[in-house]
This record gives sequence, C-alpha cells and structure tokens, in this order.
Amino acid sequence: MEFLKAIAAKEAQDIIHTYPVSPHTEVVDINEVLGRVLADNVVAEEDIPPFSRSLVDGFAVKAKDTQGAKETNPVLLYLKGEIRIGQEAGMMLENGSCIYLSTGAMIPQGCDGVVMQEYTRKMGDAVEITRAVYRGENICYTGEDIRKESTILHKGRRLSPFDLGALSALGITGAWVYKKPSIALLSSGDEIIEVSQKPAPGQIRDINRYTIASSLQNSGAVVTFTGIAKDDMEDITDHLRASVKHDMILVSGGSSKGERDYITAAIEKLGGEIRFHGINIKPGKPTIFGSLWGKPIFGLPGHPVSCMMVVIRFVLPLVRRLEGETETEQQRTVGVLTTNIPSSYGIEEYVRVRTDYRESGCSITPIFAKSSVISSLSQASGYVIVPEGKEGFEQGDEAVVYYFD
Amino acid sequence: MEFLKAIAAKEAQDIIHTYPVSPHTEVVDINEVLGRVLADNVVAEEDIPPFSRSLVDGFAVKAKDTQGAKETNPVLLYLKGEIRIGQEAGMMLENGSCIYLSTGAMIPQGCDGVVMQEYTRKMGDAVEITRAVYRGENICYTGEDIRKESTILHKGRRLSPFDLGALSALGITGAWVYKKPSIALLSSGDEIIEVSQKPAPGQIRDINRYTIASSLQNSGAVVTFTGIAKDDMEDITDHLRASVKHDMILVSGGSSKGERDYITAAIEKLGGEIRFHGINIKPGKPTIFGSLWGKPIFGLPGHPVSCMMVVIRFVLPLVRRLEGETETEQQRTVGVLTTNIPSSYGIEEYVRVRTDYRESGCSITPIFAKSSVISSLSQASGYVIVPEGKEGFEQGDEAVVYYFD
Repeated sequence: MEFLKAIAAKEAQDIIHTYPVSPHTEVVDINEVLGRVLADNVVAEEDIPPFSRSLVDGFAVKAKDTQGAKETNPVLLYLKGEIRIGQEAGMMLENGSCIYLSTGAMIPQGCDGVVMQEYTRKMGDAVEITRAVYRGENICYTGEDIRKESTILHKGRRLSPFDLGALSALGITGAWVYKKPSIALLSSGDEIIEVSQKPAPGQIRDINRYTIASSLQNSGAVVTFTGIAKDDMEDITDHLRASVKHDMILVSGGSSKGERDYITAAIEKLGGEIRFHGINIKPGKPTIFGSLWGKPIFGLPGHPVSCMMVVIRFVLPLVRRLEGETETEQQRTVGVLTTNIPSSYGIEEYVRVRTDYRESGCSITPIFAKSSVISSLSQASGYVIVPEGKEGFEQGDEAVVYYFD
Repeated sequence: MEFLKAIAAKEAQDIIHTYPVSPHTEVVDINEVLGRVLADNVVAEEDIPPFSRSLVDGFAVKAKDTQGAKETNPVLLYLKGEIRIGQEAGMMLENGSCIYLSTGAMIPQGCDGVVMQEYTRKMGDAVEITRAVYRGENICYTGEDIRKESTILHKGRRLSPFDLGALSALGITGAWVYKKPSIALLSSGDEIIEVSQKPAPGQIRDINRYTIASSLQNSGAVVTFTGIAKDDMEDITDHLRASVKHDMILVSGGSSKGERDYITAAIEKLGGEIRFHGINIKPGKPTIFGSLWGKPIFGLPGHPVSCMMVVIRFVLPLVRRLEGETETEQQRTVGVLTTNIPSSYGIEEYVRVRTDYRESGCSITPIFAKSSVISSLSQASGYVIVPEGKEGFEQGDEAVVYYFD
C-alpha cells in the first residue's frame, strides 16, 4: 500500500474538476422544478409581452399632444373610451384624443405614451392632462421582456424563483433538467456510534452523517446512508459494496494516515484507484479522492469541522457538476479584519469568521477553534481563505468572506 | 370605499413587524429538521467531547519531556503502549514515556500534549521525538466544543447543516420546532390565464403564482394556490372565503388604485380591515396590507418585478415570523457602482444589480428595466436600496448589495 503525497489545493481541485461525469436527464413539471438544473437551453417561442401593454392606470395619448402640459397649464384631450384589461384594443387613437387604460391593458394603435391617472382631471367627456409624457413612457412594448427566439435561460443553470417566472411567462409547464444524483454516505471508525446511543468511554456520536447529508440535500442531491463501518477491512469493503449503484461515494472518518487507515486499502482492494491522499489545506489535510467502479469516491476527515470544510470546498463542486450545474456564483462579501489571522506558508487555510455590518462597512472577526469543535461552525457566517503563498492576514487588512449557505 | 394614502417603507415595515403572530410547535426528527426553526432553546445535557481526545495520530507525552526536542537533537521516550479509538484510557502516562494514540483516541492521565507521528521516529521499544509540543497541543479537552448546561442554539434559530452537527453531537434525535405556516395564494385579474393556455389578445399568463409560491417554499412555507379570480366582487370574495383556514393570504394583481380595484373592497366586505394601501417604494407602490379573519393579508402588485420586490422586502419577513424565526441575517456584499443610479427623493427604490468580483474588489452594475420585465430578475444577483432621502447614487459610490437567495 503506497501513500500519495499531499498535493496543493489547486491541484486537488483540478483533479476533481476534470473527473468525468455524465448526468442523466428528465422532464420535470414547473411545480417541482425549483432548484433543479437545466439540461438544455430555453429558447423563447414567442414575444413577452405578446402585445404592448400599459404599465399604469391612466390615459393612452400621443406624447406630442401632451407637450408643455403643466398643473397650471393643462392640455385638454377628448376622451374616446376605455380599453379594459384582457380586451383587444380595437380603437385607434387620433390626434387630440385619449383612451382610458388600466394597468396591463393593450396599447391602442397610434398611442406612444400613457399619462398616469394622478396627473389628470376628468372634465365630462374630456380629460385635463397636467404633466407631459415622453415617447414610450409607461408602455411595455411587445417583446421588451423576452424577445422571440432568444435564449432566455442556459443549459447548466439552477432554476431560481425568478427563472420560474420567465418559464411561466412563456407558457412552459415542464423543463428538461438533470436527474438528482444519488450519493452513498458511509461513516467509519470503531469509536463512532449512533446518535441515539449513549457514548461509552472513548466513543463518539456520528456527527458527520448529519452535517454531510444535510449539506448535500441542500444542494439537491439524494443521500443514502449505508451505515457505520468498523475499522476492519472486511466490514469496510462490505459497506462499500452496498454503494455500487450510487453516483458518488463518501466515507467519513478513517482517512488519516494512521496505522489503522483502511479506506485507501479498501478502495484498492475493490479494484478502485486513489487519485490523491492528502491536500495541503487546514483544516482537512487527510482527504482521499479516487475512483471506484467508475464513480468518484471521497474519504473525508473525521473531525467535524475538517469534514465540512472539505465538503464545502471539494465535494460540493463535484456534486454540482453531477447535478449538471455549470455556472455557480458563490455568495461572498468584502470586509476588514478585526484581528490578525496567522497562517503557515505552503498551506491553504480556511478560517471561520463572523461578519458584522456597520455604517462604515463590513467587519470580519475570525472564530478560532480546533477542527473538532462543531459549535464553531454554527457561530460562523462564512470563511476567509488564506492562500498557500501567504502567511496570514493582519488586523485592518481587507479580506473576502465566502458565505456558508 | 376610502383609499389610504401611500406611506413610507419604514412605516409599512413597522406595521407588518408588529402584526401579532402565534405559530404552533411540533417535534420533528433530526432527519427532517434541516431549515426548520427552533421553538425552544437547546441546552447541552453533557460535555462535548465527553472526554479529552487526541486531534492527531501520534504520541501522548508530557509536554515538558519534549522541551528542546529538534530534528538534530531528538528526545528519546519509552513507548508504553497504545490506546485505540473507542477504548478507555486505562494507562497512566509516566515521566519519560509516551503512548501511541490514533486521532480521536482518549487522552491518558498525565498527558498534556500529543506529538504528531510525522515528528517522531520509532526505535524498537522507544520513540524519538524531533519536535517539542506546547501544553494542550493536539488535544481537544472535555467540554471544549460544547460545555454541559450551556445554551448552544437559541429559540427562533433556523437550523443549518452545522446546527444538525451540534444536535447530533449531543445525542438529540428530534427538536421542538415551529410548524410550517400555511399560506393561501390567489391570482386576480380578467387578463390572467393559466400558464398552459395560449393568450388571446390582451391576455397574459399567470407568472406571479410561480415566482411567489417558489420564494415562499424556499423559505419553508406551505403554499396552496386557490385559483384565478376575475375582476368581479363576488368571484374575489368567493376565492378569499376558500382561504379562511390558512395562516396568511396573498392576492397578486388588482392592487392598483384603478377603477376596477376590488381587492380592498372585498377585504372590507368580508369584515377585514385595511392597514395600508400604497407604500412609497419603487417598484411596488400599490401594495395592500390588512387583516382578514385575524390573519394577515397582502394585495401584491401585478407587475412581476414589483410583486417579487414586495415579496422579498415585505412579505418574506412576515413569513419568517410566522415560521418563528427571530434572527435573520440577510446575506449582502459591498461594492463600487459602475454607473449612476438616478432615483426620486421621497421614494425608497430597489435597483436590481449584477455583482462582479475582480482583484480590486466587487463592482456593481445596475440592471435597468421596467417593472414588468421578469427576465431582468434572472440576470440580477441582488439589489441595492436607494433610501427615500437620497436622490440616487453616482458612479464610483460604494453601495451595499442584498443578495437574492
């Protein structure tokens, strides 16, 4: 059994990023499609709006007829009638006249502006206009929202509530999306017990199962927990065999290079391949990545904080690729550090931080705690990355915070 | 029928924020509790870790025994044995000796430091230590993560993956949380048709149903769509009556002060009360808030962008209170504007923006589009608020961006 040397974070990301994935697709109803990832471009088959509409309640006019109109010097226009919402605009607007429109009503021919009701006074069968409009004011023209034949949403995009708005505007009631990946999750370690059990001396409850599974579920994956394996080659290989049908395999615990490390050995025994064992990051160094039965497999550190940071930085990007996502914008902010952050050269370090917004901007306070301290994550709103070529940050330095979501 | 005057955003928020809510509670299993809101404080009944543990694979030592140890001048310690993970530390560490520990193993009595394996060399029944440790190094002490009897998570907190880690560490398999609020959603307007239908001239598909419902579902609410009501008093009151059992009622469309506005009239006819009609915001001015059968009711603008901005700024905060949430940190960032943002004095304006991260920091680019243009929301990553006392921002100004999530 040969251990691979710890590699740089960037190299590990490149290896993970080039792991080939081929997610399957399915059609999903618009009511169920929120958060799913498009497997094809969405091209508009019609103009939205399909007709020019009024954006306000008011009077359809010719803009030039309102020129110079003021509260003290109103323009008088003949009221020709009304176009109701949902009604075709049969009328033609003539010079010196106006037509009443509700918000959303169709713009009649000849009209190039709508005066809001509050800048008008009704005088029998005429209307006083007390404010001029410019050409196009308060009109949403045909195709101004979505142009026919334009690509409105691209393949690889995760659908937001707003995107559902665009789909429904176009009458699209179902979308081609990628299937949710199925991920097998295994805990390992003689000391790990079920959460419902009372730990005997030396034992510890299975925390990582819940933090990993819920992070992955938040991202849209389906997680199957396959159990707790003992530090025993046969037990680990048996548990791994139960994961054969899944799209990805995660093992938490047992990834450090101690004498009892069976994870890399078990992967190799089952015909798999180790791509790397160890990343020069803190926390999270003893991370394993490989391939088993053509599927990606991670061995994750047992310490809860190390485990979660590796999930966030290395596992979730691959999960998102398995989900078909191509454009991910990680939410972040910029702020000023309230204290020094020491770090070692040659290690990429992830420091949990709290952000506070004040008049003067955002202040960032590091939360220093050992990598086993799960409660430190609950207190953090995000993390700062100290690059491997930097020996930390100083108080007053600007830094980027990546939000946990 | 008396229309209320448009009020300031702050006043509207105060009225909504003081609307009394009394969410119910239930116990939910840890496997289902992600994203739910705690209805009670969680107090630790035990120390985590329950025993002092090693954070690394290596040798338990007395820190003073390693003083001065260097690669070129190692300290030789007698190897007394090994404590396996999950095993009680029966041994006592004596001066001049060490004990092998795996990561997670119990710290033996007398030990106050652990030397990482990579800074040691095994020499028969002794071990060469090539680096000194400080007191406490590589040990996580009893209660260092969670102290017995401390409150680790507070009532009103929405549970994150990390929080599930803290719960599982404590052996908590179910939590008291608030029930999900049930929200009735009604679309109104003669021009509104089902998404599956082809619009006749003047008709428009029901976009807001999908954008509103999915935003609320993202927040954890249960949304029931009660149909599309015509601009007809009887049809609207009939549809509202179908909402009587829900915790909150939302009506989209029909909230502007046109001649055909039936929403306020219908609420009053059914014995409800209007708290305000109109907020000095852009977009979203014609917003209605009131009370019907003791439940909060919103009339939302029909324009998709206006509707969503009111949902984000005014409806979701009340939904979160109905969900029991008390501490909400909205994710945001700070950046520099690439262009001017003009705005009117006396109006609080919400401007959709795109954020771009570069070496020099975050740049913010406004997306100018009419309030009916739903596709403009898909392109935005968040919004900037222009306060009512400010006439816009200038290019190069710093601004805060609130992320859409």
